Amino acid sequence: MLSQEENELLVRIGPGTPMGEVLRRYWHPVGVSQEVASKPQRLKILGEELVLYRGASGAPVLMQLRCAHRSLALDYGRVEGDALRCPYHGWLYDRAGQCLEQPAEPEGSAFKDKVRLKSYRVQEFSGLVFGYLGPDPAPFLPLYDVLRMEDGVKGIQIRNVNANWLNHVENIVDISHLAWLHGYAYPSYGAKKVTYHWERQDYGVDNVMAIEGKNDDSDTHVSCYGFPTVNRFNVSPVKPGGAQVRTVLYRVPVDDSSTLLYFVRFYPSDKKSFSVSRRMDPPGQYQRLESDWWGIDVADQDRMAIEQQGVIADRANEHLGVSDGGIILMRKMMRDSLTAIAEGKDPLCVIRDPAKQKVDFNQKATLMDDRRDDPNYAGGFGAAAE
Amino acid sequence: MLSQEENELLVRIGPGTPMGEVLRRYWHPVGVSQEVASKPQRLKILGEELVLYRGASGAPVLMQLRCAHRSLALDYGRVEGDALRCPYHGWLYDRAGQCLEQPAEPEGSAFKDKVRLKSYRVQEFSGLVFGYLGPDPAPFLPLYDVLRMEDGVKGIQIRNVNANWLNHVENIVDISHLAWLHGYAYPSYGAKKVTYHWERQDYGVDNVMAIEGKNDDSDTHVSCYGFPTVNRFNVSPVKPGGAQVRTVLYRVPVDDSSTLLYFVRFYPSDKKSFSVSRRMDPPGQYQRLESDWWGIDVADQDRMAIEQQGVIADRANEHLGVSDGGIILMRKMMRDSLTAIAEGKDPLCVIRDPAKQKVDFNQKATLMDDRRDDPNYAGGFGAAAE
Amino acid sequence: MLSQEENELLVRIGPGTPMGEVLRRYWHPVGVSQEVASKPQRLKILGEELVLYRGASGAPVLMQLRCAHRSLALDYGRVEGDALRCPYHGWLYDRAGQCLEQPAEPEGSAFKDKVRLKSYRVQEFSGLVFGYLGPDPAPFLPLYDVLRMEDGVKGIQIRNVNANWLNHVENIVDISHLAWLHGYAYPSYGAKKVTYHWERQDYGVDNVMAIEGKNDDSDTHVSCYGFPTVNRFNVSPVKPGGAQVRTVLYRVPVDDSSTLLYFVRFYPSDKKSFSVSRRMDPPGQYQRLESDWWGIDVADQDRMAIEQQGVIADRANEHLGVSDGGIILMRKMMRDSLTAIAEGKDPLCVIRDPAKQKVDFNQKATLMDDRRDDPNYAGGFGAAAE
Repeated sequence: MLSQEENELLVRIGPGTPMGEVLRRYWHPVGVSQEVASKPQRLKILGEELVLYRGASGAPVLMQLRCAHRSLALDYGRVEGDALRCPYHGWLYDRAGQCLEQPAEPEGSAFKDKVRLKSYRVQEFSGLVFGYLGPDPAPFLPLYDVLRMEDGVKGIQIRNVNANWLNHVENIVDISHLAWLHGYAYPSYGAKKVTYHWERQDYGVDNVMAIEGKNDDSDTHVSCYGFPTVNRFNVSPVKPGGAQVRTVLYRVPVDDSSTLLYFVRFYPSDKKSFSVSRRMDPPGQYQRLESDWWGIDVADQDRMAIEQQGVIADRANEHLGVSDGGIILMRKMMRDSLTAIAEGKDPLCVIRDPAKQKVDFNQKATLMDDRRDDPNYAGGFGAAAE
Repeated sequence: MLSQEENELLVRIGPGTPMGEVLRRYWHPVGVSQEVASKPQRLKILGEELVLYRGASGAPVLMQLRCAHRSLALDYGRVEGDALRCPYHGWLYDRAGQCLEQPAEPEGSAFKDKVRLKSYRVQEFSGLVFGYLGPDPAPFLPLYDVLRMEDGVKGIQIRNVNANWLNHVENIVDISHLAWLHGYAYPSYGAKKVTYHWERQDYGVDNVMAIEGKNDDSDTHVSCYGFPTVNRFNVSPVKPGGAQVRTVLYRVPVDDSSTLLYFVRFYPSDKKSFSVSRRMDPPGQYQRLESDWWGIDVADQDRMAIEQQGVIADRANEHLGVSDGGIILMRKMMRDSLTAIAEGKDPLCVIRDPAKQKVDFNQKATLMDDRRDDPNYAGGFGAAAE
Repeated sequence: MLSQEENELLVRIGPGTPMGEVLRRYWHPVGVSQEVASKPQRLKILGEELVLYRGASGAPVLMQLRCAHRSLALDYGRVEGDALRCPYHGWLYDRAGQCLEQPAEPEGSAFKDKVRLKSYRVQEFSGLVFGYLGPDPAPFLPLYDVLRMEDGVKGIQIRNVNANWLNHVENIVDISHLAWLHGYAYPSYGAKKVTYHWERQDYGVDNVMAIEGKNDDSDTHVSCYGFPTVNRFNVSPVKPGGAQVRTVLYRVPVDDSSTLLYFVRFYPSDKKSFSVSRRMDPPGQYQRLESDWWGIDVADQDRMAIEQQGVIADRANEHLGVSDGGIILMRKMMRDSLTAIAEGKDPLCVIRDPAKQKVDFNQKATLMDDRRDDPNYAGGFGAAAE
């Protein structure tokens, strides 16, 4: 149970907020490589409005949305080379945000030299564009295992959820929901007596669950938390007998009340492919599946749970138990990160050693019996990575 | 004329507000019996979000909407017997709100014993489900005359209005609007010189109107106010020569800016029937009727008047006259109820004596000549009780 | 650059605000003569809700929206002669707002004499209805040149913009945007090196631009600012070889976040005509024109620029240069007007001398080469005055 003040401290992530400062010390997906072109696109992340485009040199540019002159939104502007021109009075900015031209100002004016937009570091990897909104020096981008996988079917899917980012991050380490929220789809642990524990790792936390009475290794199930906002798990094969779908899921805070999910899914296959898809859903509408315990398809169950806690969950009235140890641990890591920044240090799990940039998760999915053969079950299993 | 502070005191009815405390001392309709089943439904009343369902024992259950664990909305849950299970982690609550199961917690944990949801008293009568959100002991449910009527045609209609509850309650005791807002439909008093007075009764207030110069009893017209939110009146027969339609109208505060109306209508008939209907209208859209003075069908005139005062009427700039005596009296009754509660007593018109549970109103509708035979008049008269 | 406080002072125009007091000292369009009839219409101006109708005597009436009795919106009422009756209880108000009847009050009551609605001065000219919301004595209505023009094609167009009024007024004196925002459509100055200066006039300001290196008179271009919210300019002829379209554009503050534009357009022609049109657009949707530099038709470019500064522009982070001299001058005139009112004087450009009521602007449009013959250019030029 948090006080109302503690909850506010954790959930608010706009510019200048303490948690906003923490989350700005990490790389976050801001777009998909194949969609970033010379037409500038507007986006919002961590409560900040930005514009993203690809200049002539081929590198993406991530800058503040509004022109320094009269605050016009630059997604209405025009890319010239690597630079971006505002449509209102023609001010031109280079990729670093430096103003290069103010056409109406007198010849020889030095005014433009004093004008600079915020511009943020960007890099691309595995089909994603990542941005870093924090202070220099930027840490290394974690090269998570799924991102590095090749020779197979890879897909990126972007989805929205109408809720604060912390609801989502709690869902990552809250593994006891598997046996209930997703329990109908996965009979091997659905409604079974399961025990849970959490193990701190360099990258974050391993979530470990074991069915009571079965202590051999094949009956534990490990999903992983990449601090601060990443989830690593496997889902059932797309087709029976196929390979499990390796998944990394970034939960990107848009602002205090909405979140964008970037799924990266991969499975080994002779058929090599890469695809990008988007699915934007209105709040409160979930794919029905009558045969499921809750009447909702497994592909929408997490979104339902996260939204239906309320946009910002009321943590002043929550009741956490032993099985919520992951949530308690994660919140402590957030608070430790707040403290670290206050002391001028890096927050947790920031990578400064290039030897540690490649991150392999301890993910292990052994309890994946599912209802795929149930003629009444639809949707969820096939949705991934197609 | 009220000060802005006095107006705020009267209109706000959420949890913890003084008027919210007053209104919580009465039973209010929360649903319709035939619609309450094992699928939990979400509702809001007095600014409080609740869930309503019917358990296996047949009795309705009215509980707080959100699970005590992680605040999930329980209308997404599943009824098991009389109990309700949360879909997120399977916590199970009995009809009194007591937590029975926390499946992920260790064997033998006493944690669940300490967790209890708010659960409210419910009873059913005349096709309605009533809830009581106040402290024990609950008073008796007033068994209003129309609710007790049988051997005829009975109908329940639920409508919404996008305005604060007090606009509505003022409309109950504000009988001088009949001669104008509804005056075209009722020529016997429409635009006539009418006098008004109000008489306090055990159940609330009688609104008495008399056409000037006609002092015999047949020319008075009495509608009634069941304190704090109920209206009792008759409307014209559905068919010429038929019986007047007896009506009880509950005005249920949803929150500070919206209200739900529960009409219970009855007329004696050999044809016995019972029906339930709903009509949800967007604000500002009213059924047009060009021949009416105001261009709006009589069935929508009150909704227009109540919404078009503003969601919360600006009582700091109102001007009340002698003909607004009912409003002045009603507000005094509200203030007396606030005082009573502050002194640890019951507010007005609460029934503690079982001998007084059956309430018969002094309703008398003698001035019901109407435009039903006018080929240009439509809608309103036939709308009731069909 | 303004402080946040200075910006708030300038943008807020509701009742009781300092800038609201300034703008109330001028006449503003509140409707179009041919549309004002006995059906009362609701409107909002300067954050105030009003009702406008035409009484039997033929004169328009402009009154506060809400009945003094119980705050009902009087656009649901009925005009009787020049008076307006409230539908709720039949209170009747004359055109000056004086209450004439309160039908439910006792015979001989003097209560009605004490009740009066705010009613505002109205006059009609050139097809427009103007209202004056300030204190007496009202100044003269400026009879701008375009309003007085006859013997030709005249059109009034009403459009909406979802932004604060000051964004618009800045756009009037901000003439350096012509060479860029509208630069593709007008090659004679599009992306050219242009110099700017501003000249104070009795009516406001002349905006003067000259293309560098061309100093003869035919190469200057003058548009005008009628203080506080009026723009005077010419646009290209509707048909090649025709006369330029003289335009007066009123930017009417609806409330702090929206503005209504009244265009009055005229060109001399043997074909005499008069038309009224409306175009209401949702925010963020602009007519696409791929061949334009910015992909937006010239008729929507200003609306884009004004909305895309943000509903209230962030002037605490703006950077004004030499070419923004008009904006700096205009803001000084606003501040001088605030000071004048604080000292009990008229604000700037108020007309008290009848000899000065006819206002002729120094408008001169000599740089009007345009893309009308470009088969890829559409829309904008033909939109005017048709």
